[in-house]
Amino acid sequence: MLGPRGGWQALRRCVSLPRAQREVRLRVREALGAREPAGEVKVQGWVRSVRSQKEVLFLHINDGSSLENLQVVADPSLENRDLTFGSAVEVQGKLVKSPHRMQNMELKAETIRVVGPCDTWSFPLKTKERHPLEYVRQFPHLRCRNNTLGSLLRIRSEATAAIHSFFQDNGYVHIHTPIITSNDCEGAGELFQIETSNEAREPAEKTHFFNVPAFLTVSGQLHLEVMAGAFTHVFTFGPTFRAENSQSCRHLAEFYMVEAELSFTESLEDIMQVMEDLFKTVTSTVFSKCPHDVELFHKYIAPAQKDRLEKTLKNKFVIISYNEAVEILKQASQTFTFKPEWGCDLQTEHEKYLVKHCGEVPVFVINYPYDLKPFYMRDNEDGPQHTVAAVDLLVPGIGELCGGSLREERLPFLESRLQRLGLTDAYQWYLDLRKFGSVPHGGFGMGFERYLQYILGVENIKDVIPFPRFSHSCLL
Amino acid sequence: MLGPRGGWQALRRCVSLPRAQREVRLRVREALGAREPAGEVKVQGWVRSVRSQKEVLFLHINDGSSLENLQVVADPSLENRDLTFGSAVEVQGKLVKSPHRMQNMELKAETIRVVGPCDTWSFPLKTKERHPLEYVRQFPHLRCRNNTLGSLLRIRSEATAAIHSFFQDNGYVHIHTPIITSNDCEGAGELFQIETSNEAREPAEKTHFFNVPAFLTVSGQLHLEVMAGAFTHVFTFGPTFRAENSQSCRHLAEFYMVEAELSFTESLEDIMQVMEDLFKTVTSTVFSKCPHDVELFHKYIAPAQKDRLEKTLKNKFVIISYNEAVEILKQASQTFTFKPEWGCDLQTEHEKYLVKHCGEVPVFVINYPYDLKPFYMRDNEDGPQHTVAAVDLLVPGIGELCGGSLREERLPFLESRLQRLGLTDAYQWYLDLRKFGSVPHGGFGMGFERYLQYILGVENIKDVIPFPRFSHSCLL
Repeated sequence: MLGPRGGWQALRRCVSLPRAQREVRLRVREALGAREPAGEVKVQGWVRSVRSQKEVLFLHINDGSSLENLQVVADPSLENRDLTFGSAVEVQGKLVKSPHRMQNMELKAETIRVVGPCDTWSFPLKTKERHPLEYVRQFPHLRCRNNTLGSLLRIRSEATAAIHSFFQDNGYVHIHTPIITSNDCEGAGELFQIETSNEAREPAEKTHFFNVPAFLTVSGQLHLEVMAGAFTHVFTFGPTFRAENSQSCRHLAEFYMVEAELSFTESLEDIMQVMEDLFKTVTSTVFSKCPHDVELFHKYIAPAQKDRLEKTLKNKFVIISYNEAVEILKQASQTFTFKPEWGCDLQTEHEKYLVKHCGEVPVFVINYPYDLKPFYMRDNEDGPQHTVAAVDLLVPGIGELCGGSLREERLPFLESRLQRLGLTDAYQWYLDLRKFGSVPHGGFGMGFERYLQYILGVENIKDVIPFPRFSHSCLL
Repeated sequence: MLGPRGGWQALRRCVSLPRAQREVRLRVREALGAREPAGEVKVQGWVRSVRSQKEVLFLHINDGSSLENLQVVADPSLENRDLTFGSAVEVQGKLVKSPHRMQNMELKAETIRVVGPCDTWSFPLKTKERHPLEYVRQFPHLRCRNNTLGSLLRIRSEATAAIHSFFQDNGYVHIHTPIITSNDCEGAGELFQIETSNEAREPAEKTHFFNVPAFLTVSGQLHLEVMAGAFTHVFTFGPTFRAENSQSCRHLAEFYMVEAELSFTESLEDIMQVMEDLFKTVTSTVFSKCPHDVELFHKYIAPAQKDRLEKTLKNKFVIISYNEAVEILKQASQTFTFKPEWGCDLQTEHEKYLVKHCGEVPVFVINYPYDLKPFYMRDNEDGPQHTVAAVDLLVPGIGELCGGSLREERLPFLESRLQRLGLTDAYQWYLDLRKFGSVPHGGFGMGFERYLQYILGVENIKDVIPFPRFSHSCLL
């Protein structure tokens, strides 16, 4: 029996061919999820396996809408020379209940058309082989047809959507902060400078396209702060750049960052709450929207990750102060390459120890030394160990996932600090913001690739981006 | 009476302060939309007007959550020196039904705290003044606090969300195509080249960070085509760059583009259908989600735009061929600067005439001369006037809003064309894609800023971006 929203009703909604044609075009995901059998169905995709028996021909086809393949059952007479692994096909037939327990539906083929044959011998991906990520990374234009990369990119897409929804649902205005900019935000990372290709070719006659040197953004924070002064809650989610000559598995030249700023925020707890909510909401959404894709990672790439993450989603994140962190490190039995000392940055080895010490869960470290942090972080006016209201979120296996702070909203504090740093002229506009209805505010950023690395347990950051060609200072 | 989802029930959901505090923090939008009166409410925002009468003090406050201000009614004793236009306030009191017909709710203040005073004399935005867009453009860090820019950026945010939803709802996978790339897609626009800042400073010792010259992307199309070969339907929505030394109101150095690619697509009609659906769905969503913000533009900026757009949303877009377009132009009574001739590009004056000729509605022009278009467009194999399956969408007041085509999926066609152009080596990977399950496919791109210009009737493209600092080769 057809329920009011099941069967054909549901299928009809997926029609993408003109109504006049009787055939219903279905994505593999839709075919697999159909509740009722259906005739006159067309499915298109790429062949993942061909199994020819005496009485019957089995195909598995995949169109990227899901990790699972659709099984096609056909008369052996429909087999042909071009019907190989990797070829593109169009199968027309009837969707029927599958006799197999593991799958819901299968397609009984009436016609099979090979739309695009595949030169199987030179195709680097092999049938039924589980290629290591390092192997597929060699084929930037084909690696998305590998199961693992397919799942990764579907998850990346769902996580992107979930991040947008999280902020939209909570009343944040999305801002496209500039990619080309003259500010370096904190003087932290190495910058990429941009020129027109002519200028790069003829440096002698150099004049800047924009009259002044221009760089690729390292963070949208300062631009977001401007907008938080009008919209109260704002976010951005876009590419950021660092010209660091690092070959590590943790750094990229081009990476995505989620950043948010909140006005009328007087405590670091408010910022941490948003960070924690963002992490938990997005992760839960991804887990529920792509269960099979996530399972692939938690089964083959990082087996212990699933249980750990589920526990993490249920518990409050741990909060410790920088002072406490240094005490913990000093009392550690472990010997560190960098001796833990108040006033020094936490190194990766320190971060790892702290996370382990707290039980392999996400840990907020708050209130960092004043002299370690950029000018815009809010002075805690404490002492003798002078701190600012900064926060880093450390997670197992990754280290720093998010960083944030309250921003210094008080004009006199900001003026004297910028003056000491000789930055008053460069940041006149930033001081200006404090003259016209300045409010307590704060914000944070989260590295999107590190987020994906963490939830999926992927070791090399190159494996969570669609095209790693220009991710590092050398190829692959 | 409180309905099950009205009144306090609804308000409670908005709590953003810890539960222990009895007060409910509301955004202005929430307060204005509340269905029932409520006590113990706190609203934060910036003062848009102060009107002091003998018996009563009226404030209008705005927090960027909507164009409308919330009216605050207070005892004159609550007035103080810092309570001026532009100052940031926190008002605590009772939300009550407003006696005014024009608004639903107002806030009866119990306390008013000025969180951040405003130096009104030097604040460039003036109370109740409708500043022209050219004027506010001078203050990049403050212009978002102007009503028009506020509405614009809320609309931009909603349109961004609607674009993501449109593709997600239709089964597209979102791909972050690379910003730094070595390909120039079509050899069309002028490129920005990137170097590390050190290299830019010392050109003599130049070695490239990535070993090869690297540029900012002009389009994600070729990368999307790779992904369409795995996921069938893919899209991207990100920044693109052109180093054109143009001061026009239609071009930007950094702009956003929505791009989509569809596999198993054999006709240009399928591509046009997606373009039309995208335009209509996003526009309807924006109109229904930000009615007041849109109204501001359709009232003060482009008065005739509303009716025209509503008609446009109801009717099918017009389709004409390039051949027909040239005939129409040749028969025009108007004299053009560029004489219309088969084989030549359509100029802005031609596009304007065609749109007018068709009744000031969006017009698809299809099947352009083979020699005008880049190598990847699909050969129509017609003649003697040889064309490719390309399409441009022209809209009133703007010209080209979208451009797309079927892509050449046939290896022999592509091989011979690339060979003639001497591009075989550069595009070996692109040819490769045609060897492994190549399918008929096509795609399109839509300029996001032009889209906003069109639906809002904004003349200068600088006024639809959050920060126009590096939008052109000179400042402002």
